[in-house]
Amino acid sequence: MLEQMLKQVRKEEPLVHVITNFVTVNDCANIILAAGGSPIMTSDIREVEEIVSISQALVLNIGSTDTADAMIVAGKRANERNCPVVFDPVAAGASQLRKGICEKLLKEIQFTVIRGNISEIKAIATGSRSAKGVDANATDAVTEENLESTVKLAKHLSARTGAVIVISGAVDIAADAAQAYVIRNGCQRMSRITGSGCMFTALIGAFCGANPSYPLAASAAAAAVIGISGELADKKTAEQGAGTSSFRNYLIDAVSNFTKEQFERGIHIETY
Amino acid sequence: MLEQMLKQVRKEEPLVHVITNFVTVNDCANIILAAGGSPIMTSDIREVEEIVSISQALVLNIGSTDTADAMIVAGKRANERNCPVVFDPVAAGASQLRKGICEKLLKEIQFTVIRGNISEIKAIATGSRSAKGVDANATDAVTEENLESTVKLAKHLSARTGAVIVISGAVDIAADAAQAYVIRNGCQRMSRITGSGCMFTALIGAFCGANPSYPLAASAAAAAVIGISGELADKKTAEQGAGTSSFRNYLIDAVSNFTKEQFERGIHIETY
Amino acid sequence: MLEQMLKQVRKEEPLVHVITNFVTVNDCANIILAAGGSPIMTSDIREVEEIVSISQALVLNIGSTDTADAMIVAGKRANERNCPVVFDPVAAGASQLRKGICEKLLKEIQFTVIRGNISEIKAIATGSRSAKGVDANATDAVTEENLESTVKLAKHLSARTGAVIVISGAVDIAADAAQAYVIRNGCQRMSRITGSGCMFTALIGAFCGANPSYPLAASAAAAAVIGISGELADKKTAEQGAGTSSFRNYLIDAVSNFTKEQFERGIHIETY
Repeated sequence: MLEQMLKQVRKEEPLVHVITNFVTVNDCANIILAAGGSPIMTSDIREVEEIVSISQALVLNIGSTDTADAMIVAGKRANERNCPVVFDPVAAGASQLRKGICEKLLKEIQFTVIRGNISEIKAIATGSRSAKGVDANATDAVTEENLESTVKLAKHLSARTGAVIVISGAVDIAADAAQAYVIRNGCQRMSRITGSGCMFTALIGAFCGANPSYPLAASAAAAAVIGISGELADKKTAEQGAGTSSFRNYLIDAVSNFTKEQFERGIHIETY
Repeated sequence: MLEQMLKQVRKEEPLVHVITNFVTVNDCANIILAAGGSPIMTSDIREVEEIVSISQALVLNIGSTDTADAMIVAGKRANERNCPVVFDPVAAGASQLRKGICEKLLKEIQFTVIRGNISEIKAIATGSRSAKGVDANATDAVTEENLESTVKLAKHLSARTGAVIVISGAVDIAADAAQAYVIRNGCQRMSRITGSGCMFTALIGAFCGANPSYPLAASAAAAAVIGISGELADKKTAEQGAGTSSFRNYLIDAVSNFTKEQFERGIHIETY
Repeated sequence: MLEQMLKQVRKEEPLVHVITNFVTVNDCANIILAAGGSPIMTSDIREVEEIVSISQALVLNIGSTDTADAMIVAGKRANERNCPVVFDPVAAGASQLRKGICEKLLKEIQFTVIRGNISEIKAIATGSRSAKGVDANATDAVTEENLESTVKLAKHLSARTGAVIVISGAVDIAADAAQAYVIRNGCQRMSRITGSGCMFTALIGAFCGANPSYPLAASAAAAAVIGISGELADKKTAEQGAGTSSFRNYLIDAVSNFTKEQFERGIHIETY
């Protein structure tokens, strides 16, 4: 079933409208293309309504704090059309400004999926502000000891927001109010490049665009695809004695070449 | 003759002023450098007039819809100086906003070259709005069947606008009112990365900057260089089992290492 | 001693707040991560004060001319906290606008380090405007003949501004009012990609963030690390017959894999 999600992205070639930050925008566009989707990255408030109207998914990434108004216009239009909206609360806990933007977006827009690292999700769930910039705080890290309570947090936040909650880290969690997947793919090098999180969110956008009725399965499949791709890229990087910039390329390469067999053999997933 | 165009870029090292979008700006700067030019990417309306005044070419890319006013100031100054102006009407048919910006720029600025995919050029020529976001609509694709009528469209649009028209796709067309080149280089992977089109336009900017009296030949030569580079990169990507992100690097690599021999052996060009 | 500077970056993992341009922002974030730091790239005036308050270093890069106001707010806050501020006067001599921004920033903010190419540093020091866009003017180039007078220029400018002055080029100079290092690492290919200078400045930010009491040694160490990494990347690029885009990746790769042995064996440094 999960493997079908990727197949569907390649078949549907969903147009994914992304309002995002200038740091990782190129990587986000390229990973959507690598998966089989078609990205359009505009944040101009004068056209976002029109662009959303022809798109299969909308991704909102508050790395760009100056486009919140365009996000609201785009998000409302997406909601009208039942077009999936994926939210990335980048550095949600790092400033009052971001806290305020998150609150406003959560109030105005019905999100389909919210993906963040554990510090960002906690900031959304509890208003805590423990982030270290854009990275998760080490003391927040999801471990085997706190996995169960973190899954519970995700389910509760899903019940409250109506959105699938994805918490990414050494272990990824994707949960709705009723059930959760725990995905144990990926590698440590993903935290040594900028954009791993943003690309993951963009990928969820493509997967939801092609599978709009299955946001939880689409998110879990996207987690598996980027996680396994990370492992393949990590192996290639180590074999070649390469470093973090090559790793980034190999990660996107792996998504572009992803096979059904890699999915089936590589995925480490449990339901919770 | 066409091969001279590249030689001239390396000799003149033209300063190319680019007003462009934030998605592919880094790739555009790097491909200009790879070809031998020197890029400067400012869109600040307070300085564009001054920057154009020291530049050998100006490239305007409406992926960034919020810099249209700066584009007009820069374009008018370029026209005064007889500095070539290359226009990329990104996603011209995708919104009313972009349609309006195109109309305004076409009215205010005399372009030297206009490069787009077939959907973008049709949007300019006929006001049609068939684009799928930033990509060409499949039903628009240039084929052997409609090649002659597409060449005719390009020549007519050139007569009307006074600009060389470049239509990029599986087959590239470069035409002025009197004659056209059809260039059959490139590869399918170019449509699987973001920025192929923007980089092509940036390259035309560098070629026109170094060869201001020959915009048609410069455009055709730029098409050959990026097309042959795409083929070389495609071959390397396949040999290495790599993917789309490595392909992007190999494409820019190939431009930076391009030889006279590669040009002469690789080019597939006809006049029409 | 200098090698300790890098060790300290990896140990402290400094949060580096960067206000920079959209052309090379991704490379800057990735090189900070490669060195062991944690980058955050916001320029929103509503949050920069708060972000600086949790950061170990601030980097201001005027490639983005539209964020000068945010730079002043951030810089003043950094000064209050004794948080190092590293300044990159990109294309300082290329327009009146940039000249004015530089003057204002120099008046309002006490910089810890200023890094530019020779044309940019001369623009700061003397108000001259000889730059060719973002690149140094060939007639300005630092040579063995004018090395001594250039070191003197750097020391004088340091005495006047209170900042360590770093002049990058074929030969790098790092100087305070009393002493200077001349670093002879790096390679010609660094000038064939966009962002070499911006990445160097970002790296100085990470090094100063982890070694706030030693801005001169931190700057010299950063020069050695990026220079030796450039040499390693250049060698790999040549061996593989690769080009400029692969070189960029190998440069960041080398920083991410940098060893104590590479530092000690590779560094070519003299005091002046």
